[in-house]
Amino acid sequence: MSATKEKEQQTDKPRRRSRAERSEETRQALFQAAAEMVGEYGYAEASISRITARAKVAQGTFYNYFDSRQDLFDQLLPALGEKMLAYIRSRMGEATGPEREERRIRAYFDFLRDYPEFYRILYEAETLAPKAHRQHIDAIAGGYARALSRSWERGEMPGYEKRELEVVAFMLLAARGYLSMRYGFSGDRPGAMPEWVIEAYMKFVRHGLYDAQAPGSKPT
Amino acid sequence: MSATKEKEQQTDKPRRRSRAERSEETRQALFQAAAEMVGEYGYAEASISRITARAKVAQGTFYNYFDSRQDLFDQLLPALGEKMLAYIRSRMGEATGPEREERRIRAYFDFLRDYPEFYRILYEAETLAPKAHRQHIDAIAGGYARALSRSWERGEMPGYEKRELEVVAFMLLAARGYLSMRYGFSGDRPGAMPEWVIEAYMKFVRHGLYDAQAPGSKPT
Repeated sequence: MSATKEKEQQTDKPRRRSRAERSEETRQALFQAAAEMVGEYGYAEASISRITARAKVAQGTFYNYFDSRQDLFDQLLPALGEKMLAYIRSRMGEATGPEREERRIRAYFDFLRDYPEFYRILYEAETLAPKAHRQHIDAIAGGYARALSRSWERGEMPGYEKRELEVVAFMLLAARGYLSMRYGFSGDRPGAMPEWVIEAYMKFVRHGLYDAQAPGSKPT
Repeated sequence: MSATKEKEQQTDKPRRRSRAERSEETRQALFQAAAEMVGEYGYAEASISRITARAKVAQGTFYNYFDSRQDLFDQLLPALGEKMLAYIRSRMGEATGPEREERRIRAYFDFLRDYPEFYRILYEAETLAPKAHRQHIDAIAGGYARALSRSWERGEMPGYEKRELEVVAFMLLAARGYLSMRYGFSGDRPGAMPEWVIEAYMKFVRHGLYDAQAPGSKPT
């Protein structure tokens, strides 16, 4: 136990949080409530009154943090996207080549299971928060393309030119989106992805990406 | 010139269309107007009055054909999906293997260029006409999986088990959707897909799908 913690216990008085800390907590509570409401009811039904009620703050407090409901929605998906990237990064370890890709897709499906509201927030955003959707896709695809570039620089994808990696990143992002739509739900909630679907995905990725020959090398 | 056509010209009097034919023409005009309105303004702004004005029919006439605006929207995407499948089929010829896949993606991108409203109708449907979206995706993915099965039965994809072809169909559908989103627009309208993007796509598909080894065969 840390010295600070001990002192807190001895005096039996919680440390007073700073104004900035409390403000950030409220902001996070509003994000969390908005995510739950959009996940459950969609953007159209996620009103400010529902969001503030869920976050247990006064309705007027909302405007200390966001200009409007749309302003919150425009920040919601990019914020969740950051969380998703951190989640996936934490699962990558030192893996390289196709194993890295396998960890990535498994982590993505696990993220959906842990944050079931993410899927609806993402797909409704294309229509109802297009600015956020564009920002999210750019950030995620950019990160993916950079990760593939590091793999490419290790010589793991000899068949590709560097600028093609962005095309690959979009194809893989697209695939995981559609595969979760088709196979990742039991009822309305994300469930475990069937193992044979991951295997079929990995077959395509392994041969398509990592086994592709360098131009000029002998075809097999 | 056919005998009928000649007769029409001789009498200089157009053949009187049957009631059923006129009814079908009105129906098609409403579909066409709805497609244009949704493509331009989105489902939310595509009101019955806008649609009937564009189709040049009285507003009340609408209800002879559709129960509601939502009923029209629910039929719109599947109808366009049929049109898309016919368009792509007409371009396939006798091609087999990866060449068939290349024709398919080129035909898809050309369809988007010729029917620029399709993209918005499709992506907004996931949120605003979910029943139509589900029906469309099932129809398109089912058709794609059957086409891949015929290819598989010709022995073109020795590395795959039959049930994995549906996973592949979803991956390829997803890829063309995301690639059109990223590379297929100049400004707001679909434009020509850059040639190098199609080449990168085909590299992935050729190696991932057609060059994949049968289980048990020697790795290269």
